[in-house]
Amino acid sequence: IAIQDGNEVARYMSPLHASDVGDVLEAISPADRFELINLLGELFDYSALTEIDDSVRLELMDLLPNNDIARGVQELDSDDAVYILEDIEGGDREEILAALPTFERLALKRSLDFPEETAGRRMQTEFIAIPPFWTVGQTIDYMREADDLPDDFHQIYVVDPSYNLLGTLALDRMLRAKRPAVIKDIMNSTIIEVEAEEDQEEAARMFERYDLVEVAVVDETRRLVGVLTVDDIVDVIQEEAGEDIKRLAGVGNEEISGNVWNAVRSRLTWLGVNLVTAIMASLVIGMFDATIQQMVALAVLMPIVASMGGNAGTQTMTVAVRALSTRELDSYNVRRLITREFLVGVVNGVVFALVIGVVAAIWFANPLLGLVIGAAMVINMIAAGISGIMIPLTLDKLKIDPAIASSAFVTTVTDVVGFMAFLYIAAHAFNLF
Amino acid sequence: IAIQDGNEVARYMSPLHASDVGDVLEAISPADRFELINLLGELFDYSALTEIDDSVRLELMDLLPNNDIARGVQELDSDDAVYILEDIEGGDREEILAALPTFERLALKRSLDFPEETAGRRMQTEFIAIPPFWTVGQTIDYMREADDLPDDFHQIYVVDPSYNLLGTLALDRMLRAKRPAVIKDIMNSTIIEVEAEEDQEEAARMFERYDLVEVAVVDETRRLVGVLTVDDIVDVIQEEAGEDIKRLAGVGNEEISGNVWNAVRSRLTWLGVNLVTAIMASLVIGMFDATIQQMVALAVLMPIVASMGGNAGTQTMTVAVRALSTRELDSYNVRRLITREFLVGVVNGVVFALVIGVVAAIWFANPLLGLVIGAAMVINMIAAGISGIMIPLTLDKLKIDPAIASSAFVTTVTDVVGFMAFLYIAAHAFNLF
Repeated sequence: IAIQDGNEVARYMSPLHASDVGDVLEAISPADRFELINLLGELFDYSALTEIDDSVRLELMDLLPNNDIARGVQELDSDDAVYILEDIEGGDREEILAALPTFERLALKRSLDFPEETAGRRMQTEFIAIPPFWTVGQTIDYMREADDLPDDFHQIYVVDPSYNLLGTLALDRMLRAKRPAVIKDIMNSTIIEVEAEEDQEEAARMFERYDLVEVAVVDETRRLVGVLTVDDIVDVIQEEAGEDIKRLAGVGNEEISGNVWNAVRSRLTWLGVNLVTAIMASLVIGMFDATIQQMVALAVLMPIVASMGGNAGTQTMTVAVRALSTRELDSYNVRRLITREFLVGVVNGVVFALVIGVVAAIWFANPLLGLVIGAAMVINMIAAGISGIMIPLTLDKLKIDPAIASSAFVTTVTDVVGFMAFLYIAAHAFNLF
Repeated sequence: IAIQDGNEVARYMSPLHASDVGDVLEAISPADRFELINLLGELFDYSALTEIDDSVRLELMDLLPNNDIARGVQELDSDDAVYILEDIEGGDREEILAALPTFERLALKRSLDFPEETAGRRMQTEFIAIPPFWTVGQTIDYMREADDLPDDFHQIYVVDPSYNLLGTLALDRMLRAKRPAVIKDIMNSTIIEVEAEEDQEEAARMFERYDLVEVAVVDETRRLVGVLTVDDIVDVIQEEAGEDIKRLAGVGNEEISGNVWNAVRSRLTWLGVNLVTAIMASLVIGMFDATIQQMVALAVLMPIVASMGGNAGTQTMTVAVRALSTRELDSYNVRRLITREFLVGVVNGVVFALVIGVVAAIWFANPLLGLVIGAAMVINMIAAGISGIMIPLTLDKLKIDPAIASSAFVTTVTDVVGFMAFLYIAAHAFNLF
């Protein structure tokens, strides 16, 4: 880029795949990014912008003139264009849309009208729709002549005059059929479609379930309005899995390219919730301050009971949250799972009660203390198993995302039960009030 | 099933997609599953078995006669057949393979020879390979005549006589070309291929990166041996994301259908590790037992410092582990990220130091105690930020999966630093030794 020669740069960049161009853009400084795109001019393929981090893209969008962006997105399939436009603020977005030809503008506007993370927002409005009475030969000839075909496609949609979906035809089926065969007779008439308003996660589940490569998107009157392709769905699955992981740890949908303030904000809520639950646990300890004063060993040992319970609860909760989000957990197996988690709590509780009981008895040369911590451990591990499964299930029933809120509740239960059981039993065993 | 009438059952089941048949099998009792498959006999489509839980499938495999399984898997594409066979124990697997025709047997054996979770194990050995000098017309005619085509395919592989890959041709490109066009001239000669020994996760990353629908799998001599399809990759992505989530929480690759013993085993290791780290934290507290005896408020407040640090550390660590596993985190941005996490620690530390400082000062009517806990909070939040990013990075450098081991180390650091900082500062501030 130092050499400032557009042709030179273009020669290096043009054989690269859009993903690789995206990587180059991410690696260089913000000023160089803008420079590079300007140097490439019309040769710059805007699909590279769909491969870079949101924050980098937004920064670039601010720098680039709206007219250039309009020219760039016009070349893209509508799903990529929407992806780039959706994060641009109102005024700029209107200006870019206004600079587009009418047909493209209307298609993009319609997609942008659907809520974020729906099938309608992700769909591509370029697809091939043909009537059922055409023959294979006619269809092939049509495709050879037409010049507004989508960039890549894997199946053809068979529709009636009002664009209601009648069936689909995979390209490999068509290639295996003879030219005179009528589409109606060879098409797959088991209709799998998603509504445009549907959550993208639902659509992804359908792809997984039925091993799809493309699926039809229909509006509320069941008219075909677009298609969802598997490459977008792969991104959706990756995104949703990442969201689950981050939500479980209480970080908002944070990206590593975000700045300090984004990161602080995305974590404050969860840390605030945790502070409240930690104070609740402290209140429980405070109830036993006289007990602790007479036997400091209790203060030394009590975090062990709480920590083990917290971990066991998190394990159960994670399995439950993941199973809920992949829909493996349903009414058929929920009762079995609750029983299992209860038993796991009992078994792990007894195992670790024995270990910590012996350790504590020897450490403080006090067998009764070993018994006390062992009993508290069993109680807390069972509480952990039960709350680890019941809390996500309850939240899910209440339509609250269990990935976000479960941790806070589960660790509150295990902290409170852990400290309470240990200190209460100890107070009674050693007569310390 | 109660009616024991095969034809009746077949009439209900046959219009169902394999995934739906799988769901039916999972919902009914083990005895009914076996009964159902027997009733359906030759009508049972073994691909339903690829859609059910591992443990349910293994149970069924034990019950079904090996000959029936051999007949069933013979009908499947090789990737599905491998999926079913890979979990069957040695002797039974040999018997099933022996019952297959030579060609199928050799193909399946070759796939099974590749290690688990590699491209070679997941690939499908049915694909269409043609020479570069054929015309579009010849190719279409060949596909119309051939009867051993794969079930679904999206591109055609162009190879030289020794099966080295020369290029690929997507079906939509072929349909747009005229019959006399020569394959060589219209094929995509940018070759994207994976080695059979490659980890399936790497292959998945390639699909995401290049928006693929199918990719060629080659052996060490670069000969084409199979293809990976996107429907398998979607499963891989879902699986790997699930593994990350579960590893972070310290549950092995556990499925909700596993029994109590599986679950206990998969969690014992992590709980054991946690017990050791909890005891280490207790040793730190034990060093200050005289201090605590003189001021029980310290025992009441100390879990707050440790718990906040643990949560902040887990947040940072989760972001880092996820970024490492999706390869967003690399040498370009690692320095920036470490600085950011340090600053986030400072900011969140100061925020929560103020809150808890005021709470503690009022609660125990002791402003100095508020100062002490505030200072300890800032120190521990910074320790949390730094260990949350450095520990996963170090583990990754040492080729240890950061998802598995990071939590244990991070919480050890935040527990030890938390208790130590709080009690040490308190001991000095109040002169309690």
